[in-house]
Amino acid sequence: MDSSGSSENVESRVHELNIKEEEDMNIGEIKKEEELSVEQIFAKKEVPSWKKQLTIRAFVVSFVLSVMFSFIVMKLNLTVGIIPSLNVSAGLLGFFFVKTWTKLLERSGLLKQPFTRQENTVIQTCVVAASGIAFSGGFGSYLFAMSERVVKQSEKGQDGFEYKNPELGWIIGFLFVVSFLGLFSLVPLRKIMIIDFKLTYPSGTATAHLINSFHTPEGAKLAKKQVRELGKFFTFSFLWSFFQWFFTATDACGFQKFPTLGLKAFDYKFYFDFSATYVGVGMICPHIVNVSVLIGGILSWGIMWPLIETRKGHWYAADLDPDSMQGLKGYKVFIAIALILGDGLYNFTKVLSQTIAGLYNKIQDRKAMHLPVAECSSPVAKTLSYDDQRRTQLFVKDQIPTWLAIGGYVAIAAVSTATLPHIFHQLKWYHIIVIYIFAPVLAFCNAFGCGLTDWSLASAYGKLAIFTIGAWAGASHGGVLAGLAACGVMMNIVSTASDLMQDFKTGYMTLASPRSMFVSQVIGTAMGCVISPCVFWIFYKAFPDLGMESSEYPAPFASVYYSMAKLGVEGFSALPKECLKLCYAFFAAAILINIIRDALGKKRSWFIPLPMAMAIPFFLGSYFAIDMCIGSLILFIWQKKNKAGANAFAPAVASGLICGDGIWALPSSILALAGLKPPICMKFLSRATNNKVDTYLGS
Amino acid sequence: MDSSGSSENVESRVHELNIKEEEDMNIGEIKKEEELSVEQIFAKKEVPSWKKQLTIRAFVVSFVLSVMFSFIVMKLNLTVGIIPSLNVSAGLLGFFFVKTWTKLLERSGLLKQPFTRQENTVIQTCVVAASGIAFSGGFGSYLFAMSERVVKQSEKGQDGFEYKNPELGWIIGFLFVVSFLGLFSLVPLRKIMIIDFKLTYPSGTATAHLINSFHTPEGAKLAKKQVRELGKFFTFSFLWSFFQWFFTATDACGFQKFPTLGLKAFDYKFYFDFSATYVGVGMICPHIVNVSVLIGGILSWGIMWPLIETRKGHWYAADLDPDSMQGLKGYKVFIAIALILGDGLYNFTKVLSQTIAGLYNKIQDRKAMHLPVAECSSPVAKTLSYDDQRRTQLFVKDQIPTWLAIGGYVAIAAVSTATLPHIFHQLKWYHIIVIYIFAPVLAFCNAFGCGLTDWSLASAYGKLAIFTIGAWAGASHGGVLAGLAACGVMMNIVSTASDLMQDFKTGYMTLASPRSMFVSQVIGTAMGCVISPCVFWIFYKAFPDLGMESSEYPAPFASVYYSMAKLGVEGFSALPKECLKLCYAFFAAAILINIIRDALGKKRSWFIPLPMAMAIPFFLGSYFAIDMCIGSLILFIWQKKNKAGANAFAPAVASGLICGDGIWALPSSILALAGLKPPICMKFLSRATNNKVDTYLGS
Repeated sequence: MDSSGSSENVESRVHELNIKEEEDMNIGEIKKEEELSVEQIFAKKEVPSWKKQLTIRAFVVSFVLSVMFSFIVMKLNLTVGIIPSLNVSAGLLGFFFVKTWTKLLERSGLLKQPFTRQENTVIQTCVVAASGIAFSGGFGSYLFAMSERVVKQSEKGQDGFEYKNPELGWIIGFLFVVSFLGLFSLVPLRKIMIIDFKLTYPSGTATAHLINSFHTPEGAKLAKKQVRELGKFFTFSFLWSFFQWFFTATDACGFQKFPTLGLKAFDYKFYFDFSATYVGVGMICPHIVNVSVLIGGILSWGIMWPLIETRKGHWYAADLDPDSMQGLKGYKVFIAIALILGDGLYNFTKVLSQTIAGLYNKIQDRKAMHLPVAECSSPVAKTLSYDDQRRTQLFVKDQIPTWLAIGGYVAIAAVSTATLPHIFHQLKWYHIIVIYIFAPVLAFCNAFGCGLTDWSLASAYGKLAIFTIGAWAGASHGGVLAGLAACGVMMNIVSTASDLMQDFKTGYMTLASPRSMFVSQVIGTAMGCVISPCVFWIFYKAFPDLGMESSEYPAPFASVYYSMAKLGVEGFSALPKECLKLCYAFFAAAILINIIRDALGKKRSWFIPLPMAMAIPFFLGSYFAIDMCIGSLILFIWQKKNKAGANAFAPAVASGLICGDGIWALPSSILALAGLKPPICMKFLSRATNNKVDTYLGS
Repeated sequence: MDSSGSSENVESRVHELNIKEEEDMNIGEIKKEEELSVEQIFAKKEVPSWKKQLTIRAFVVSFVLSVMFSFIVMKLNLTVGIIPSLNVSAGLLGFFFVKTWTKLLERSGLLKQPFTRQENTVIQTCVVAASGIAFSGGFGSYLFAMSERVVKQSEKGQDGFEYKNPELGWIIGFLFVVSFLGLFSLVPLRKIMIIDFKLTYPSGTATAHLINSFHTPEGAKLAKKQVRELGKFFTFSFLWSFFQWFFTATDACGFQKFPTLGLKAFDYKFYFDFSATYVGVGMICPHIVNVSVLIGGILSWGIMWPLIETRKGHWYAADLDPDSMQGLKGYKVFIAIALILGDGLYNFTKVLSQTIAGLYNKIQDRKAMHLPVAECSSPVAKTLSYDDQRRTQLFVKDQIPTWLAIGGYVAIAAVSTATLPHIFHQLKWYHIIVIYIFAPVLAFCNAFGCGLTDWSLASAYGKLAIFTIGAWAGASHGGVLAGLAACGVMMNIVSTASDLMQDFKTGYMTLASPRSMFVSQVIGTAMGCVISPCVFWIFYKAFPDLGMESSEYPAPFASVYYSMAKLGVEGFSALPKECLKLCYAFFAAAILINIIRDALGKKRSWFIPLPMAMAIPFFLGSYFAIDMCIGSLILFIWQKKNKAGANAFAPAVASGLICGDGIWALPSSILALAGLKPPICMKFLSRATNNKVDTYLGS
């Protein structure tokens, strides 16, 4: 049994787009410089030693950005669960902060060390590692799925189910014992993957291009303009959220409840909710993702749910609580899960077979490479010219001892095995040991697949753990919670491992030392293990209805993960009457759609929607799909009018929109914690209700 | 006693700005053409005979545009009463429609007569004449001031006051008997004013420049782009109004009640009401007008009214109806009237003395001109070169016989004297004869002053009639209504006379025949006499609360005119306790501010507000001032970023915003007449009220 799901896949496909655009852009930039290769341009710049790459200012900036991005990712986690790539904004902002900092120092004559691209890479790595924890920590998925709130909501009407409420203490502890394993598990293999196999790592490559371009004079000029755009839209988006806040006296008020398309459509969650975030996300995601989400929304809330509702009393009991998993909500969640699992299974199989095939080829190639270079004609030899030589030379210079890697892994695994059963008493030590034995292999598979396809299967491996460990523990021994905990362990290892390898690729291309990359990743992960739980804690305390369906922060994937874990432990008995047939149909449809997509090839399948993206609105509704499509539309018109401008500035504008709205979550939760409530309610009433209310208020 | 007020003055100052911009723009355009003078460029184009200038297509287009602009002007009349110059949009749209029409015919080979600038001028003249009636007809001022609704509102708590409700029949009759007098009164003087006195008529000159530029190849290209912008913003503004409509189930709902700056500020009418119209108006009006309006709003609703409210029970009875003229509302209206009258008196005196001085100079010049040309050195001789020779030649070619003018005037005056007392039995035949004896002199004064300063004092002469005829008739003989009716008679004559002369100037500069101008003006006026009452009638029937303070269409100047008429008849006894002192102070302040403005000169007085503009928010509140300032801000930023672009396109964008929103009034009143009400109420409640409502709705 296998699976892949949640936001991650969408994210991966998002990467694809960005890369292409960035590459176009940056290569364009660089080529202008008299057709020199990248490293020829930088040849005169000295590369600082690995210790000098790790400056204090870099980590100060990283910390600030990590907090910021943790807020943004957390907000995305808890609202819809679609997380676009924030690499561009992290890169831009990192560059901007340190550049401003060094400029100021330069003017005052205090600058000791100029800002290099290696230092830039260190910041990028650290920020990505730290904010990655906000996603892989499962605050919107497996971890929050254990909470009383989600369990009670899913088991409406019944008591006696196990739960584990989030507490700052155990979450930080848990993250610390599981998040570093991924780093140590793959460190010894970095040379094989980066230099020998020459894996692409599209995201890592794109980030490297971005950073390299920042440090050319023309690139710096462009970056400055991009930062200005980012800042403008950041401010706009922040102020817009601030303005919205005033009108949101309760969750039923405000712009988020604006029946833009009418009250009837609003009841079926079709409306534009004025969220700058998801308009920005729509601008970053490829058009097909946005359209898929909308198609999914129309298919589910526009057609299927209203039809199923007419079967009320037949397909499900008429007197059920509307939130019951035995009723309409069950249909919504389980059909979505079927789509997610179908898509996940297909892609898991596909990426795994590609991984194995790729591995086989690479090993063959490697053997061939031992022949004299002269006999290998064309591409391979060519690319090994100046750039690759210099990069390889620096990459192999600073070694990380293998004993450190293996020793670290074993030590942390031991601590972890001893600690985890105390945190989750449903998870036994032998479960953990089994996970840790398989983890390095799975981590390698994921890192290799990611290098080939840019597709991280972390959440797929996580779901694998849910089903296997859950079933192993069994329903009577708290299999649901054991499964969810195992998911967390697995996801963290697998996800940090592939992140690390992406960063090594970035480091390779920017001449940053593997050592400084590794240290930066370790420090970033440590930061993330503290920052993310704290950020989550602020949300959790500030919004007491977090996770409830009607809340501003419904954390939709929490109940999906809970339902999956329950499915793994209890089988199909959890499903309402006709649901299983529909689930089979959608599971098969997801696989079929993927087969058709691949059969047609990338170019001819542009109009076929992605099942994964279609699944998300199944339980959430289409409102964010409408936001995203508006983002898509804006980008489309912009590209029609000014292709170059759109490609250069759309990511910056989108980042500004996402970040401004995301950062507003900080002051808004502080206001909520301080007990300051918005003063006005913007309410939408039908004319009849309004007349009643007017009479009531008049009397 | 004298006065000047309502929207007209603001409008005049608006003209000033437009002219400058248009002249800059068009002169720029024309100069490029190898530095030829305007008429040299057009020298090869044949000027059609005056009968051929009056084509059927021109009048069809004029009719369509007249209906459209009547709606727009009516909407402006009935909402705030600030009417910007719509000449640019009328010119653009007229050009666009006929150009499209002729292009289509040209392609199909059916075109008999090409589109000339003379025909364009005919359209422009006809549309301005027709939509001018929508303003001078007094639907937002003297005419509606007679209605039961306004009288009852102003005389709250008392009965027995005379009123005359609007009826389609008598309004059309009234307009027909008074609107043509102005045309005939000044026709014989056209040669003296245009050729001998060479009066500037800035608005007429600007319109002529605009039309001339349309018919040069480059100008046509620019016009095409401007039309596209206009169309874009027209569509946006229309759709935006349409969208707003859905959320306005009652007058207390919707975007117009959006407490953008908070509920407390909303109570004092400080909010942005999302009106595209007034944002557009703000973009056309000079910055100082917008700022003045805002300053007036802050001074009155921000400072004075809250202070006067604290004197409740002392300065006015605490148990009064809030709408009573004896209470706070009296302070609001009468202080505003004091400002309007102070400003009016100053400008009346100023323009009149300029007129007399100018007249004296012109007559002196004329004597001098009879000397041989060689002795008159420089400017005068120079401007008489090619352009003026050709223009003069064509202007004097087609004569309008003086007997026709005098005969027409006497005949219409006779009919009018016989008819009017039947419409308003308070107005006696001797009142009318006195008006008609003085009218030609006043019309000449106004047309001459307008030629010098672009400042039409029509409403000032109207107020003069209110006070004189009102006092003459006396309170016991319905002086209030007699005064208002006399105001209408006077305003119509004076205003059409100056419009006619502006059009003659336009015709002079575009080589259109005076005959065709005159015929076009007559036809346009006749159209306006039918269209405007019908448009008003649609509003009146569709919105039963038209004229009420809480309505979407409060028609604010109606009660101002009523109060003025009452003041003229009854003296200061109508005022609440401390109001007279404040009125004196503001009357004096208005004059003082004007003196300071003129003493400092145009350049150094840019920061001194205009009393007339300040008065409007005194009774309306600042919401439209905020709209207008946003328009101003947009224009300011645009000009900073791209001066040339802003100057070329801002009038088109603003016209689009105004026209789209204005035209929405047509479908919206049709919907209202059909009994179709908006389905949703967007309501704004304080948190406390919202909790009450939620409890009520929940139970």
